[in-house]
Amino acid sequence: MGGDFAPASVVEGAQLAHRKYPHIRFQFFGREDAVRPLLEAEPSLALVSEIFHCDSAISADEKPSVAVRQGKGSSMWEAIRAATEGRAHAVVSAGNTGALMAISKLQMRTLPGIYRPAICAQMPTKTGQCAVLDLGANVDCDAATLHQFGVMGSAFARAVFGMEAPSVGLLNIGTEQLKGNETLREAYDLMAGESLRGSTFHGFIEANDINAGVVDVVVTDGFTGNVALKMSEGTASLISSMIRRTFTETVFAKIAYLLAKPSFKQLRKRLDPRKYNGAMFIGLNGIAVKSHGGADGYSFYHALKVAIDSAQSDINARIRHELSQVQEIAPEAPQRQKEPA
Amino acid sequence: MGGDFAPASVVEGAQLAHRKYPHIRFQFFGREDAVRPLLEAEPSLALVSEIFHCDSAISADEKPSVAVRQGKGSSMWEAIRAATEGRAHAVVSAGNTGALMAISKLQMRTLPGIYRPAICAQMPTKTGQCAVLDLGANVDCDAATLHQFGVMGSAFARAVFGMEAPSVGLLNIGTEQLKGNETLREAYDLMAGESLRGSTFHGFIEANDINAGVVDVVVTDGFTGNVALKMSEGTASLISSMIRRTFTETVFAKIAYLLAKPSFKQLRKRLDPRKYNGAMFIGLNGIAVKSHGGADGYSFYHALKVAIDSAQSDINARIRHELSQVQEIAPEAPQRQKEPA
Repeated sequence: MGGDFAPASVVEGAQLAHRKYPHIRFQFFGREDAVRPLLEAEPSLALVSEIFHCDSAISADEKPSVAVRQGKGSSMWEAIRAATEGRAHAVVSAGNTGALMAISKLQMRTLPGIYRPAICAQMPTKTGQCAVLDLGANVDCDAATLHQFGVMGSAFARAVFGMEAPSVGLLNIGTEQLKGNETLREAYDLMAGESLRGSTFHGFIEANDINAGVVDVVVTDGFTGNVALKMSEGTASLISSMIRRTFTETVFAKIAYLLAKPSFKQLRKRLDPRKYNGAMFIGLNGIAVKSHGGADGYSFYHALKVAIDSAQSDINARIRHELSQVQEIAPEAPQRQKEPA
Repeated sequence: MGGDFAPASVVEGAQLAHRKYPHIRFQFFGREDAVRPLLEAEPSLALVSEIFHCDSAISADEKPSVAVRQGKGSSMWEAIRAATEGRAHAVVSAGNTGALMAISKLQMRTLPGIYRPAICAQMPTKTGQCAVLDLGANVDCDAATLHQFGVMGSAFARAVFGMEAPSVGLLNIGTEQLKGNETLREAYDLMAGESLRGSTFHGFIEANDINAGVVDVVVTDGFTGNVALKMSEGTASLISSMIRRTFTETVFAKIAYLLAKPSFKQLRKRLDPRKYNGAMFIGLNGIAVKSHGGADGYSFYHALKVAIDSAQSDINARIRHELSQVQEIAPEAPQRQKEPA
């Protein structure tokens, strides 16, 4: 088990998930001597858990290409294998992102017809949350790939947010149809057809529309999505530090802070980034979810929740079904950028 | 004069600038009957002001291509003409962005050797502020263009922040040299040489480094820069709305807010986006600054400040000088993407 606070954070997350989903069984891949005492302290969780001892682990700084070649038998490899071979419904890891993506792709392969898997995660909005993809798996994306992201993101919103008919927006730097580059205009045309079944295509959105909650699903290439996500984190961190500074710089401000403490606590709870932990590698023929490396138990629980909700709603069957409908409508859809297996 | 609150906001901004820069003279281009009464109410400003009556104005929704063909004689056209012909040192407008860019390019032309002008503006950081370019003028940029943005951004930081040796970062989705695409790696190599005279090249930065204040100048293409800027605005707006909601939802929270009001006022002052108003169209053979369309007087003052500081530091002579040094070092620099005049 990877991540800065594993295995304690992982077991704690599982315990929280066990309370919400008592019917779910857990398989822990890692050092048995480290996991067993933690599970013994949680007898109810232990009853639905199994430990699979692994001698080796993939380190946080291992190159994905090396992990793929030399990772066999490691805890990450074995956990992915269990999810690939049907012994588990999903795999969740707080370990090395690149290795998790590379080994998951190698073992699970992509869903039939999917050009590129993407990283899909939640972001907070004024009205709730939205799904954003891709967050960094594909630096460049062509129009057909972006269109598939729309289909996959809709399936994610249905599975994880429980939405019936999510709305999908294509991230651009203006909302007029002439804005952006050729790829975006082409993707717009693909998505504006009848091809997004069961969801509505909102059209272009701008980056400030993401947190405003204008759409349920935001489609973008991995470079732009990653910049948007990290910019949001950076701005939130700047504002937090300014709040801290403002409410500590004078004695009067400190007293005001003490009086307002319950409200600040409530505010922190609302903005808690741990609730948005859990990035799904969507488009694989299996469910693989990446937790933030610095996740604590509460945060890891949310990554587990993404995996459980996705598995329970059979997200990949939905994606397959919707893609088959898209292909019926647009059989001439370009087959570019299909990656070598 | 354009903008939602013009001409009152423009005259108020000029009055604020007049107090800080008493030696600066102002030329107002617009409807004389609207401007004159406002100036008469500010006798000290009126003494250093002149009104140039214009019958027509370019509307906010006019297409730039139409504005260029039909805008002759409009207030925007005439103001840019004054700055181009040397009767003014700079032009500042809160009007139609695309039209301002197009007419400025047409009249002022680009500086010798500049491939593409960029939109450069300030963003707040934990330690002060940084300059970010391009914010939307160029959707795609090649490596040589990004390199020039580094030179121009450094000149901006020197002029507007009064810095001696600004540090320059190249926005990417990871800080390792292998991240990103070919263009970014090529730009890295160009900037890592000795070619950024008088400033230091920090290397790749990630989007969360921008508000953290890791560098003084952030270089990126116009698509990514625009997304980063708007994402930051969206996140700040989300947090503001959550603060508002949290401190109004219970009677106790409302009382706490009242007690903490002076600190909240201080916080709002620190985060005031009006202080960062004023985007320079950098790389033109003249100084053109765009104010936010919704600017009030205080906000417009900051856009004027960018123009005045840039003119006083002779920013374009600095850019020319530094570019000539770059070209001495790297005479084989590619001349691609040079735009038709």
